[in-house]
Amino acid sequence: MIETMEIPVTRVKKSRLPEVDFSHLPFGKFFTDHMLEADYANGEWQSVSIRPYQPISFEPSLMALHYGQSIFEGIKAYRDKKGRVFIFRPYDNLKRFNISADRMDMPPVSEDIFIEGMRRLIDLDREWIPARDEHSLYIRPFMFATDAALGVKASETYKFMILLSPTGPYYASPMKIYVEEKYTRAAPGGVGFAKNAGNYGGSLKAASVARSQGYDQVLWTDAFEHRWLQEVGTMNVFFVIGDKVITPSLEEGTILEGVTRDSVMTVLRGEGFDVQERKISIEEVLGAHQSGLLREMFGSGTAATISPIKELKYKDYSIHLDPANFKTAMLAKKILTEIREEKRPDTHHWLVKV
Amino acid sequence: MIETMEIPVTRVKKSRLPEVDFSHLPFGKFFTDHMLEADYANGEWQSVSIRPYQPISFEPSLMALHYGQSIFEGIKAYRDKKGRVFIFRPYDNLKRFNISADRMDMPPVSEDIFIEGMRRLIDLDREWIPARDEHSLYIRPFMFATDAALGVKASETYKFMILLSPTGPYYASPMKIYVEEKYTRAAPGGVGFAKNAGNYGGSLKAASVARSQGYDQVLWTDAFEHRWLQEVGTMNVFFVIGDKVITPSLEEGTILEGVTRDSVMTVLRGEGFDVQERKISIEEVLGAHQSGLLREMFGSGTAATISPIKELKYKDYSIHLDPANFKTAMLAKKILTEIREEKRPDTHHWLVKV
Repeated sequence: MIETMEIPVTRVKKSRLPEVDFSHLPFGKFFTDHMLEADYANGEWQSVSIRPYQPISFEPSLMALHYGQSIFEGIKAYRDKKGRVFIFRPYDNLKRFNISADRMDMPPVSEDIFIEGMRRLIDLDREWIPARDEHSLYIRPFMFATDAALGVKASETYKFMILLSPTGPYYASPMKIYVEEKYTRAAPGGVGFAKNAGNYGGSLKAASVARSQGYDQVLWTDAFEHRWLQEVGTMNVFFVIGDKVITPSLEEGTILEGVTRDSVMTVLRGEGFDVQERKISIEEVLGAHQSGLLREMFGSGTAATISPIKELKYKDYSIHLDPANFKTAMLAKKILTEIREEKRPDTHHWLVKV
Repeated sequence: MIETMEIPVTRVKKSRLPEVDFSHLPFGKFFTDHMLEADYANGEWQSVSIRPYQPISFEPSLMALHYGQSIFEGIKAYRDKKGRVFIFRPYDNLKRFNISADRMDMPPVSEDIFIEGMRRLIDLDREWIPARDEHSLYIRPFMFATDAALGVKASETYKFMILLSPTGPYYASPMKIYVEEKYTRAAPGGVGFAKNAGNYGGSLKAASVARSQGYDQVLWTDAFEHRWLQEVGTMNVFFVIGDKVITPSLEEGTILEGVTRDSVMTVLRGEGFDVQERKISIEEVLGAHQSGLLREMFGSGTAATISPIKELKYKDYSIHLDPANFKTAMLAKKILTEIREEKRPDTHHWLVKV
């Protein structure tokens, strides 16, 4: 099926590749020559195509703009020294994409369109992936409601697209964060576990306030008591307490199920660590710090893989740790990098060849 | 200032007005000949203009599509038998619009652009407002993030637009609703009080489930206990218990502060009713029904003004009321209609002449 799916391709007349300065690649600002586009109408996906990256035109009543029926994913692909290209765990992102779609009352996208479309698009633009250390191709699949009407109901038409953006090394400088006690990201029964547009729009104010006070991000807490830890900014969060690695559990549906979160847990378990997914409160973290057991704090996400946290503020109390001592975080990052660079066997079949 | 603000106008060559069947006007599907557009960049609003209604073009990385930084308002204008046109309480919507903007980390819009822009746009398209009973012009101001980049942070550029849509009579047939106990609309510290796109996208699934079970909408409850009543679908909610009119209070920031909600409270207080804004639980409503004191239940919103609720289901218990006996709801609707139709003095200065 994958081999036979028809995806018409319209190639650019002239590549923009020579115009791009690969020594300066701000995240998500440059896009490759082509994009994938598929339209949903009459209950099915149709007219999948790859064409030159270009502006798209909409009625100003576009439902996604007014009612936020819109979801996305973030994935990375890498090119090795031999020119081979691998996508990291795209099937996990497809699975999550369709979980998000269901929560937002949107249709699922098939593997044909999501995975095979992505592979063909990347293959076409493979020269855009810098074959340099720590460089990668950021892949942005997204879907949005395209009905041109203002009635509040699920759209009957949608557009699915994939954009590709070359990215340079992400210098994950250690973060200063504080525990958010005023704003809330998500509550049980809400859309916190879905990668939908509104979750991000709703988080911007808290992040701006944090930056204005000299912090990089906030550590979100639960909506009820503001003590159960959720995620940091747009990343999942990990704490190393004694010889245990702890990350907040997902059963309340308020936290995004990060693919990198799962990768970190998997490789650390493979190294024999006791990795616990469970509820963890700010009091537990403070208590661990006071008793000298809090060893590491870090975020995990597609962009930075792993971002150490050097300072965590809660009320009048500040925890300072030296990321130079974050052996667990560094080990997880090293193993993930080695898997991606084929220096270590891909026992979990995370690399999908293009 | 209002008189001197420069709003360049490009008129349509040929009006689409003769093509529209005013006896069939589904909500929010037909738009008038012109639209207002303003762009924000470099820290200020610029290039306000009115031009023919037409598609708009965007980079596919448009931030609003990916991260839902997008807000809107809904307002109505009316044309009377003498051809005079009035907008209903637009200053209240401007105030709420800027409250939404602040919560979503977006810049405020000035009165010049919002109110005066709206007046000039409506004046230009005044022939589109049907001078018939129960017909009106639905006004949709909205603002969305226009940065073309995938980094998660507040956009530096925005577009503000106003669309106009002629609407026919809204037959508010009595609603069947159930008390939502699974999905959550908003939690304290979240964005529930803001009219942002994501709130609506997040509500679609619950509404679809309700419709599939033969209900028109859900009555949202609080995120913690699912017992404190919030709003119904996209409307505020009122209960008449004994001689008291009760609507959920706003102090937790989880409920939209409806302009129609305020209009209903104001006119009923003017008629001597005891109108209470306070927390109200499903148990209180059930108890009132069992003791024979629950007289009316209705929703309030811009589209329908007032929508009676004929059935409310909670677990295995169903409350049935006959909307023919909803004297309070009918009185509020009658007074609001008479104010709009200038049959009653506009003592609150709600009508703004175009």
